[in-house]
Amino acid sequence: MTDTYRVGCVIFDGYETLDIMGPIELLGMYPETFDLVMVAETKGPIASAQGPKCVVDETFADGGEFDILIVPGGDGTRREVDNEAMLDWLRSQAPGAAFVTSVCTGAALLARAGLLDGKQATTNKLAFAWVVSMGPQTEWITEARWVDDGRFLTSSGVSAGMDMTLSMIAKTLGTRAAEDAALWAEYTWHRDATNDPFAKAAGLV
Amino acid sequence: MTDTYRVGCVIFDGYETLDIMGPIELLGMYPETFDLVMVAETKGPIASAQGPKCVVDETFADGGEFDILIVPGGDGTRREVDNEAMLDWLRSQAPGAAFVTSVCTGAALLARAGLLDGKQATTNKLAFAWVVSMGPQTEWITEARWVDDGRFLTSSGVSAGMDMTLSMIAKTLGTRAAEDAALWAEYTWHRDATNDPFAKAAGLV
Repeated sequence: MTDTYRVGCVIFDGYETLDIMGPIELLGMYPETFDLVMVAETKGPIASAQGPKCVVDETFADGGEFDILIVPGGDGTRREVDNEAMLDWLRSQAPGAAFVTSVCTGAALLARAGLLDGKQATTNKLAFAWVVSMGPQTEWITEARWVDDGRFLTSSGVSAGMDMTLSMIAKTLGTRAAEDAALWAEYTWHRDATNDPFAKAAGLV
Repeated sequence: MTDTYRVGCVIFDGYETLDIMGPIELLGMYPETFDLVMVAETKGPIASAQGPKCVVDETFADGGEFDILIVPGGDGTRREVDNEAMLDWLRSQAPGAAFVTSVCTGAALLARAGLLDGKQATTNKLAFAWVVSMGPQTEWITEARWVDDGRFLTSSGVSAGMDMTLSMIAKTLGTRAAEDAALWAEYTWHRDATNDPFAKAAGLV
């Protein structure tokens, strides 16, 4: 691990915009610590589920290594869970990463790659059953804004990814740095990972 | 006004990622109502203040007309307040728009274009004095998550743009549609436009 983390922001057609852009907003406040790289299987540009398209900085084939992975959800995950190129790349990157993270249904990709076997994890409460079916060896936590299992951080839906990201900033740069990032973004940080009103709203608990 | 709103998501070098991606995430849940178009002065791609780059769908010169404008903040606003091409374009679009909105320091661009003269507005609390100096004819509201002055909706920093966007969804599609969007995004909607802890945190009140 170095003082600078190369952050692989993984995108694919149909990624959920805010799943990746929320973390980017917050990590982007510390550019000397977090080097943000948009990484995808193909050169792109890559269209989000909401339509707007992003430029790809590096492809899997470029062979770059990442200290942090952020895997978003979105409609595209329904296809990517069967994309061996994606799953193989995640498997190749995870062992060397300081943090492997997912937002929303991005957990389905980590699960299908086998990376969440034997671990605790969570995902979006409105797509819970489908994601759970992708990881039979995972201990899925129903009521959780995010789950911290060592190097593996998995968050519930969309905005919960920002709470998880702030917790990662706190782990790496300290609580004050996370508080400052939330303040600048005028984001009310939900610090309690178990504070999850959405599990109830979805009728899961 | 039609049943479909062409939404001009205005970007420029150094736009704040979440200022534009937060609204896109929420409006993108109703693609039949909100047609999202990334619009810029130049063909791009355009780099956000956080680094990742977006593809431009239309340039100002393409002559498209928009029913909703979303103007983000970010470091790039410091340059764009003196960019007559940007200001002229905003002036040309605003009269025909159902909603003219800004997030964070995006209000500085609307103010410099003269569009907020005689109106109430707000902006990011950590850049308040600078934005206020751009609009001497505007009644700036210090303590506000967002300000609703008829067609003009201006929000405070970054995340507040999501609260403002949900209020715009409520105005156009009803409260239930806004609630559903917040639920899917697992976003805790701050419905009270005057609920602004950040004005105090910034020492403004």
